[in-house]
Amino acid sequence: MIYFDSTATTKPQTEVLESYKVVNEKYWYNPSGMYKTSVFSKNLIDKASSNIFEELQVTNKKIYYTSGATEANNLAILGICMSYVKQDKHIITTYIEHPSVYNVFKKLEKLGFNVTYLKCDNGIVNLDELKNALTKDTILVSIMWVNNIIGSINPIKEIIEIVKDNSHAKLHIDAVQGLTKLKPNFSFNEVDLLTFTFHKIEGLKGLGALICDKKINLTPIIYGGHQQEEIRPGTLDPSLIVANAKALRIANSHLDIHLEYVRKLYNYLENELKKIPNIDINKTDAEYSPYLMSISFKNIKGETVMHALEQSNIYVGVGSACNEKNKTIERAVYAITKDETRAINMIRISISYHNTKEEIDYLIEKIKELGN
Amino acid sequence: MIYFDSTATTKPQTEVLESYKVVNEKYWYNPSGMYKTSVFSKNLIDKASSNIFEELQVTNKKIYYTSGATEANNLAILGICMSYVKQDKHIITTYIEHPSVYNVFKKLEKLGFNVTYLKCDNGIVNLDELKNALTKDTILVSIMWVNNIIGSINPIKEIIEIVKDNSHAKLHIDAVQGLTKLKPNFSFNEVDLLTFTFHKIEGLKGLGALICDKKINLTPIIYGGHQQEEIRPGTLDPSLIVANAKALRIANSHLDIHLEYVRKLYNYLENELKKIPNIDINKTDAEYSPYLMSISFKNIKGETVMHALEQSNIYVGVGSACNEKNKTIERAVYAITKDETRAINMIRISISYHNTKEEIDYLIEKIKELGN
Repeated sequence: MIYFDSTATTKPQTEVLESYKVVNEKYWYNPSGMYKTSVFSKNLIDKASSNIFEELQVTNKKIYYTSGATEANNLAILGICMSYVKQDKHIITTYIEHPSVYNVFKKLEKLGFNVTYLKCDNGIVNLDELKNALTKDTILVSIMWVNNIIGSINPIKEIIEIVKDNSHAKLHIDAVQGLTKLKPNFSFNEVDLLTFTFHKIEGLKGLGALICDKKINLTPIIYGGHQQEEIRPGTLDPSLIVANAKALRIANSHLDIHLEYVRKLYNYLENELKKIPNIDINKTDAEYSPYLMSISFKNIKGETVMHALEQSNIYVGVGSACNEKNKTIERAVYAITKDETRAINMIRISISYHNTKEEIDYLIEKIKELGN
Repeated sequence: MIYFDSTATTKPQTEVLESYKVVNEKYWYNPSGMYKTSVFSKNLIDKASSNIFEELQVTNKKIYYTSGATEANNLAILGICMSYVKQDKHIITTYIEHPSVYNVFKKLEKLGFNVTYLKCDNGIVNLDELKNALTKDTILVSIMWVNNIIGSINPIKEIIEIVKDNSHAKLHIDAVQGLTKLKPNFSFNEVDLLTFTFHKIEGLKGLGALICDKKINLTPIIYGGHQQEEIRPGTLDPSLIVANAKALRIANSHLDIHLEYVRKLYNYLENELKKIPNIDINKTDAEYSPYLMSISFKNIKGETVMHALEQSNIYVGVGSACNEKNKTIERAVYAITKDETRAINMIRISISYHNTKEEIDYLIEKIKELGN
C-alpha cells in the first residue's frame, strides 16, 4: 500500500512501541501513589517531560498531558477564557483552524465572547489584520502554525511580536502539523500555550500535550483528583508518556534530513501536477509545508478521487481526518479560492520520508488517468 | 514485592499488551478516514464496542470512549447538567463519591445547581433519604457502585427502582470498582449512564468508557471534529480500544472464581485483624467488596504505616490514588466514623486474585508488629 495520509496519522516507531511495552511490564504502577514503585513511575514521567522541554528548547514551562491535540486545544482555549465569561472579552482566531480550535471559538461566541476570525484568504494570517483586530479586551489569540488541510505556514515569529507589542493577550499555537517537520523561525519559549500530539509524529495515539507558561493559571475543563495540579486530573500513563517522549526525540533528530528529502519529493510532485489539466493545486504565494498538498480536480469530487486512487492501492486524505463524516466544504480551501466546488473536490496528499520517488511517479500517473 | 493496591491500578495482562502491539503494527490507521484501511480500523473499534456491550449484557446503549474514568464521570455529569444551567435544577450524589464525581458536583453547585449530598453514614446510600431527596426538578442522580476507599457496596437495584419510580432524573453509576469484580444484582441495561475504566481490571491506562442510553443527548465538554457524534471528538485509538475490550472479557470470564478466592482471603484477613488491638476496620454492617479493606491504626498516620510496610516490601494504598497529594481526610472513612483521626490514619488494603494466603499472613504479621 502506498500511504499518502501521514497528516491524519502515522505508524508508530518500533522503538516507541517497545518502550511502551517495557514500561507497562515493569513500571505500570499508579504514578499518583506515594510508595517507591509509584514514585519511580512518576519520576519516569518527569524525566519524559524534561526530555520534551529539552527537545522543544523551552524553559519555565509546564506540560499538561491530555488525551490528544483536541483536548489540548480545548484546555488551552477554554482554560484561558472560562474565567472571563460575560466580561465582554475579545478573542481572536482564524477562519482556517482545525475544528478542535474553530468549534471551541464558535462555542465561546455563543457564550458571549466577541470573536474575530482572521480571514486568511492568502492561506495565512494577514499581519495588519491581526494588529488591527487586537484591542485592550483581547485575552487570547489562537493561531495554527501549519494548516492541516492546505499546508500553509503562518508567520509565527511576526505574530508573536505583534501580539506582545499590541496587547496583553495570551498566544496559543496549534503546532500539530509543524512540530518535528519544520524548523521554527520562532522560539517555542515565546509562545504562551503550545499544542501538539504524538500520533502525527510516529508516536502512539491517546496522548496530546499542552506546553504552558508557568505563570498561566488555566481553568480546568474536567474535575477530579490532584493530578497535574488539578488542572487536568485523571491517572497518568507512564508508558504512553515515556514512549511518546521517545517518539518526539526520534522525529526531532531527523528533522533536517527528512525535511530536505520530503521537500524534493514535494517540488517534483508540484511541478508534475502543474502540467496536468483539470487539476488545481490549492496554494497561494505564501510559504507552504512540503509535508502536505491540497489539490482539486475540476470535475470530480474529492471523495470519488480518493476511492479511485484507493483502487490503485494509493491512500490520500479528503481533508481533516477529524472531519470526514458529514463532510462539509474545507474552510481552508474555500478561504484561499472562494470556490465551493474546489473546496468539495479537494484531496490532500501527505508526503512523508517513507515515500519514494517511484511512489510519487505512480501517484502522478494515476492522477493523470483520472484527470483525463 | 507484595502488591496490595490493585484498587489504584493493575498490571496489564500479557495478552492485552500483545493485542495492543498487533493493532498498532497492522491497524494503526486513523479510524476517521474513509478508505478501506481506515474503515477496517473503525470496524475493529465497532467490534470491540459490541464485545463490551455483550460483556455488560446491554442493548440499546452507545459507548463514548474517554481518556479514563475521570473524564467519563465528567462527561456523564456535565453532559446531562450543562444544558440546564440557571434553570433551578436539582441534582443528587453522595458525600463519599470519587473526586471525579464529587468535585464536578461542587463545581455545579457554584454554577447554581441545587445539590443534595447523600450522607452515607452507614457506608451506603440510605434509600429513604434518596427517596425523600428526589423532586420534580431532579435531573441527575450519580451514585457509585462500590466505594473506592472503604469498599461498601451500594444497593444499586433498589436505587434504580426508587429513581425510576419517583423522578424523571437520569441515573449515573460509577462502576469502576465493581465491574468484573462483583456480580451485579441489577442490570446494566437499566442504568442510564455507566462509567468504568480499564486499567483497574488489568487493561491499559489512557482509556475509560461511558455507556450511555441511546436516547440520551449529552452536551459535550470538549469540541472538535465529528468523532463519536461530536459528543467526544478527537482521534480514537483502535489499539487501546481493542486491547482493553479484551481485558474486560478476560476479567469478566474469571469473575466468579476470582471473587470466591478473594473473598476467602478477605474473610481470613478480617478475622485476623480483628484480633489486633490498636486497629479499627473501617466498616459498617452494610455489604462490602472483598477486593478492598480500609483500616486505621489508633496512633499512627496512614502515610507512616504505608511507608513502614513498604520497608517490608508490602505495598498498600493510603486512599484514592487520585487524591494522594495534598492529602486530606478521606470522606468515606469520615462518613462512617465521624472520626477525623481515623480518616487520616487509614490505609487501604486491596486484595486481588494474585495475592496468596502467605502474603496475607506476612501482611498480618507486619501489621501486628506496627500495632504493638
